[in-house]
Amino acid sequence: MTEPDFAASEFFPALVELLRWRRDVRRFLPDAIADEELLDLLRVAQLAPSVGLSQPWRFVRVRGEAARAAVRENFARCNAAALAGYEGEDAAVYAGLKLSGLNDAPVQLAVFCETNGEAGRGLGRRTMPEMAEYSVVAAVHTLWLAARAKGIGMGWVSILEPEGVTAALSVPEGWRLVAYLCLGRPVEVHVDPELDRAGWERRTPLEDVFLER
Amino acid sequence: MTEPDFAASEFFPALVELLRWRRDVRRFLPDAIADEELLDLLRVAQLAPSVGLSQPWRFVRVRGEAARAAVRENFARCNAAALAGYEGEDAAVYAGLKLSGLNDAPVQLAVFCETNGEAGRGLGRRTMPEMAEYSVVAAVHTLWLAARAKGIGMGWVSILEPEGVTAALSVPEGWRLVAYLCLGRPVEVHVDPELDRAGWERRTPLEDVFLER
Repeated sequence: MTEPDFAASEFFPALVELLRWRRDVRRFLPDAIADEELLDLLRVAQLAPSVGLSQPWRFVRVRGEAARAAVRENFARCNAAALAGYEGEDAAVYAGLKLSGLNDAPVQLAVFCETNGEAGRGLGRRTMPEMAEYSVVAAVHTLWLAARAKGIGMGWVSILEPEGVTAALSVPEGWRLVAYLCLGRPVEVHVDPELDRAGWERRTPLEDVFLER
Repeated sequence: MTEPDFAASEFFPALVELLRWRRDVRRFLPDAIADEELLDLLRVAQLAPSVGLSQPWRFVRVRGEAARAAVRENFARCNAAALAGYEGEDAAVYAGLKLSGLNDAPVQLAVFCETNGEAGRGLGRRTMPEMAEYSVVAAVHTLWLAARAKGIGMGWVSILEPEGVTAALSVPEGWRLVAYLCLGRPVEVHVDPELDRAGWERRTPLEDVFLER
């Protein structure tokens, strides 16, 4: 099989543009995503790196109204507790942030790590068992980029108590929640991070995060 | 600013090809990577998503011979212990695997998570503090894809005892090792995963990792 010529074409600048235009989306149009389109994106996500080729990602599509309601209530409770932890201006800004698309995202996915899986036979996880969860994160990030390239926005909701979400979804023993994702067509496309727009945080220059030893 | 048209062009298929051709590289040519090329790739990696825009990634370029030797010895010790945990055919196959490029990769990076950082002000990390490490993983994966698109191979070495690596690099208090990376021009470009080639593990079909609730 011949390697595509990634370097010679316009590919690299386009990849950087994709990375620049990927956003954590919280405002979704009600338009449905076709089942086959979602499954195709998940197949792309499976190309992510995984420790020992263990592929510990497990995708749970959350469609049932009871399961969705449990996640929404979990978020509401956790978000109220988080707001109570801020004071003054921080609290005012936090209260104004829209931090999830749980009420309107047409597709919702809970992504778990199978911590007891045999695949990969433990390779690379002996001294750093967290590599299993990190592999799942790589799959989530791959899904994010692939979705964005197809015009589908994704948001990662972490203001959740993971044990509650796990229990609400009745998944097998040993599955650990890594990410709860909302997907759908975005209301708006923009290049500046949501939290930059809201004045919550700014991008850091490389010089502040780089050392040599 | 106008959104690039990712969907209409040949971009999506090229992105999928990039994901397919990204490998965990363990065999490197001695050719140097220019400093500016590396720094440009790290600037691209900073476009990764991070919880609360906290950008908790910290990149340590490991150049010193003493530091590199400490990492090599750490790997050798951990790899010997891992080998001792396999029996029979598994042990024979494991012993034949090349699991790091630490002896020849021209660029080596230790990537840490700043767990005590103020940036992001805790947003999204209250109930899932692991989101900070997950953000660093997203930056590592972004670096991997950007490097691959530039013809630079990357390998992630996790057969390491992280406390030892952290101590050898004298990094600030509160930095947690997420990844130790080797980068350089690859000896060989191939589309099949290294561990698939070696008969260690195969790709899983989506049907085995997908549920609905």
